[in-house]
Amino acid sequence: MSIPASHDSYPYQQELIWSRSERTIARTAFDAALGRELHEVIQKTKQMANGIRQSADLWDLEHYLTRRRKEIDRKYDYRYSQLTQVFGRLLYEKRLREEELSGLREDKLKSIRSFARFLAEDAAA
Amino acid sequence: MSIPASHDSYPYQQELIWSRSERTIARTAFDAALGRELHEVIQKTKQMANGIRQSADLWDLEHYLTRRRKEIDRKYDYRYSQLTQVFGRLLYEKRLREEELSGLREDKLKSIRSFARFLAEDAAA
Repeated sequence: MSIPASHDSYPYQQELIWSRSERTIARTAFDAALGRELHEVIQKTKQMANGIRQSADLWDLEHYLTRRRKEIDRKYDYRYSQLTQVFGRLLYEKRLREEELSGLREDKLKSIRSFARFLAEDAAA
Repeated sequence: MSIPASHDSYPYQQELIWSRSERTIARTAFDAALGRELHEVIQKTKQMANGIRQSADLWDLEHYLTRRRKEIDRKYDYRYSQLTQVFGRLLYEKRLREEELSGLREDKLKSIRSFARFLAEDAAA
C-alpha cells in the first residue's frame, strides 16, 4: 500500500510518536548524558584554573568555556522532532550507552542507530 | 600672550612630550599595575573555579572572564596621547601609588591627578 505524498493531509507522517513511558526514558537518558558532559566541563575547568600561570592561560580558559557552552547548547535540544538525532549523536560520541535507551520502541532505536552510524561514516570519510 | 588657535600651525600644542627617562618610568608603572590587576583576576578565577558546583557557576565564570578581559583591554592603552588618563584612572582605582610615577615632570603629574580627581568627583555626583 503506497503512502499518500501530500504533506498537507499527513502532516505528521514523518514524525515519530513518543509514548508517555518513552518520554520518561528519553528524559532520563537525556538528563544523564547532559549531567555527565557538564561534570566533564566542570572537572576540566577546575584543572585548567589550577594550572593558570599567566594571562594567556586566563583567556584560554575563557575561550574553552565559551566553546563548550555553545556546543552543549547546540547539542542538547529536547524537541521530540530532534530527539533521535540528539541520541544518535550521543551514542556516536559514547556519551550514552544503548542500554539507557532500552524501552524505546524499535522505530526510534532504528532511527537513533542509523544517525549514529551516519556520523561515524561521515567522520571516517 | 595669546596662543594661536589654529591647530594646523600648532598640531602638538596639547600634547605632552615624554622624555626617555619618563618613558621608562611610565612603562614600569604601567606594567606593574597591569601585572597586579592580572594577578587579581587569576586569583579570583582560581577561587571561582574551586567553588563550581553546577553548570550556572561555569557560565558565571565565563562571563566574569569576558568582562574582565574587555575592561583590561580598554583600560591599559599605552599610547602617549592616552597615558595621563590611563594613569589618572589607575590612581583613582588605587591600582597605582603616586610614588610609582615619581620622576615624571610636573606637567604630566598635574594632568594625571586632575583626571583622577575628575573620576572621583564624577563617581560621587
